Amino acid sequence: MNFSISKRVFYNALQIVAKSVSSNSPIPALSGIKIEVENDSILLVGSDADISIMKTLHADEEDIRLIVRETGGIVIESKYILEIIRKIDAEDVNIQIVDGSLTRISGGSSKFEINGLKVSEYPLIDFSKPSHQFQMDADSLLKIIAQTTFATSDKETRPVLTGVNFKCTGHQLECVATDSYRLARKTAELDNDSSFNITIPAKSLNEVAKIIEKDSKVLICVSDRKAQFWIENNLVQTRLIEGSYPETARLIPQTFEYELTIDSRDMLNAIDRASFIKNEGISIIKLSMKEDEVIISSRSQEVGSSTEKLSVLSYTGAPLEISFSGRYVFEAIRALSATTISIQFSGEMKPFIIRNQRDQSILQLVLPVRTYN
Amino acid sequence: MNFSISKRVFYNALQIVAKSVSSNSPIPALSGIKIEVENDSILLVGSDADISIMKTLHADEEDIRLIVRETGGIVIESKYILEIIRKIDAEDVNIQIVDGSLTRISGGSSKFEINGLKVSEYPLIDFSKPSHQFQMDADSLLKIIAQTTFATSDKETRPVLTGVNFKCTGHQLECVATDSYRLARKTAELDNDSSFNITIPAKSLNEVAKIIEKDSKVLICVSDRKAQFWIENNLVQTRLIEGSYPETARLIPQTFEYELTIDSRDMLNAIDRASFIKNEGISIIKLSMKEDEVIISSRSQEVGSSTEKLSVLSYTGAPLEISFSGRYVFEAIRALSATTISIQFSGEMKPFIIRNQRDQSILQLVLPVRTYN
Repeated sequence: MNFSISKRVFYNALQIVAKSVSSNSPIPALSGIKIEVENDSILLVGSDADISIMKTLHADEEDIRLIVRETGGIVIESKYILEIIRKIDAEDVNIQIVDGSLTRISGGSSKFEINGLKVSEYPLIDFSKPSHQFQMDADSLLKIIAQTTFATSDKETRPVLTGVNFKCTGHQLECVATDSYRLARKTAELDNDSSFNITIPAKSLNEVAKIIEKDSKVLICVSDRKAQFWIENNLVQTRLIEGSYPETARLIPQTFEYELTIDSRDMLNAIDRASFIKNEGISIIKLSMKEDEVIISSRSQEVGSSTEKLSVLSYTGAPLEISFSGRYVFEAIRALSATTISIQFSGEMKPFIIRNQRDQSILQLVLPVRTYN
Repeated sequence: MNFSISKRVFYNALQIVAKSVSSNSPIPALSGIKIEVENDSILLVGSDADISIMKTLHADEEDIRLIVRETGGIVIESKYILEIIRKIDAEDVNIQIVDGSLTRISGGSSKFEINGLKVSEYPLIDFSKPSHQFQMDADSLLKIIAQTTFATSDKETRPVLTGVNFKCTGHQLECVATDSYRLARKTAELDNDSSFNITIPAKSLNEVAKIIEKDSKVLICVSDRKAQFWIENNLVQTRLIEGSYPETARLIPQTFEYELTIDSRDMLNAIDRASFIKNEGISIIKLSMKEDEVIISSRSQEVGSSTEKLSVLSYTGAPLEISFSGRYVFEAIRALSATTISIQFSGEMKPFIIRNQRDQSILQLVLPVRTYN
């Protein structure tokens, strides 16, 4: 293996695949990036066994200045190659195996010789394309990810809840995340017919979000074992979470007797102010609503209390008091990215719904909490 | 106690005194900020017992809008008052003791009631002014701090080395820091005669640096127990480190047989590139110098090696190889803030000196390390 390439292009590519590399993998080779050089392309692979990223660099890309003198491959510790390429003070870098797996990386007046690993020591990853395929534009996929992943569970007690459920029937895609105290549901229309029901780890979706470039198209391929996201010349592949996802439709109330409409920013700021008063690390916030006055308050024996009169756009219904986790409602409202939100209640201890008034494809649900003061 | 004040002015003042507040002090009151309200001023005090900061706000300051309705005082948990004042959405805030030590903080439509502590529960801090006094402009003091504190020891085995020694004889002030592997010495001329020999904790000096405003004057008052830095309306007071500071003058070689002159930025970048190769977390770097070529290199059994030819301005002396801690030399060069530096050696295992060619008031010394390859 012996090639030279634009430092900038190579560094950017390494940064992308490095996102899936875990520095404390039980498989030593997985702390490295696999570099495979063909006559007119370079293939980079990083993986933590759950998520794998593959990137292809082609000799005909703009500004790449790829010159392959000898094909071959090597695996180099991710943090070393990133740091070396970043710090080399030259337009182009040269990378060459000099002896067994000792790899010389040079540029400008600097020369590094780094112990690599043979490609044969890197785990085999099956990148074959599953047959269920659909396209989505980057912005729609980014929105799905931003509006759902935060509501997944971070506890491994019910693994299926650490992922987002993607269920497709006909043209209709429904994405649901819940940690059993709150739920986010986003629907989208697909161009073609499909039928699948898979659960993708939230962590993988967040990695996909980091790689997606705006205004591009993403090809998504799924089987019952894995999901692939093809973004330009990058492929992010993730394992799925096994186990059947709970039926959530019946959790969502259909009728409401109370409705609060408020400016989204005002509500976020008010929750933020009240949230610093915590009980054992959790901020419980109370809304006291009646037609002519809505009060937000919080209280802790140790710290003290806060109260604030909200400027609401409207409140309809009988007087109602309801308490909830400040963080859950804050995150739900933020995810709606709305100017005006409406919160619909059906009782003091019933789940309530937060909606973007201008976008019915997204729904946030939060369970209230019981308080004793 | 009952007053109102500009949110912005009050918040900025709280931020300054909060710098000395430690959230895990064994004395509960010290996690708070003491607020004492007089007829036309407010006194704020924060302290972690080692460093104390006192700030006075006067009613006649610009934009302060201070209105005192009732004098008095209270101690409020630093993180609570900072967070409340920051988040209140109003131009002015009102603060008032409502019941015992329960304190109401209000502004806009928000109202907080926070449990405070009585002023009598706050430790007495003696802010009396010591008699040894001298003035220094802010830039000179900032330079002393930036060029010395990094070289102090972070180990408590020899407490005196965790501070910077300020020794004054006549008009001449000499500031020395060493962790016994490296040393930084900065000298300055004082306007008036003085005589003292004190050691100020590096941590305190770094706090002073954060508070100093450029282009201002700092009045420094010292006794053998404490040092005070008066900066506008702020006072930073620190305890001193007890014990006599080692005599360091004899450690600094006076004659040199080798001298390397190099662009500061080039040397920093080269060290940075070589430094990522570490042995047990420490990067040892070797300079191999002869008249027509200077090579910087590093090596580790596990990772590999780096070599780089340096573009030097000049090297005079017989060929010499010397190894040292990359981090120590990097920090020393950075502290010089020079365009061109000269490094003077007197032998392979002798301490060497790094100087800013245009500023003889600052000297950095580093001990080499022995290597076996």
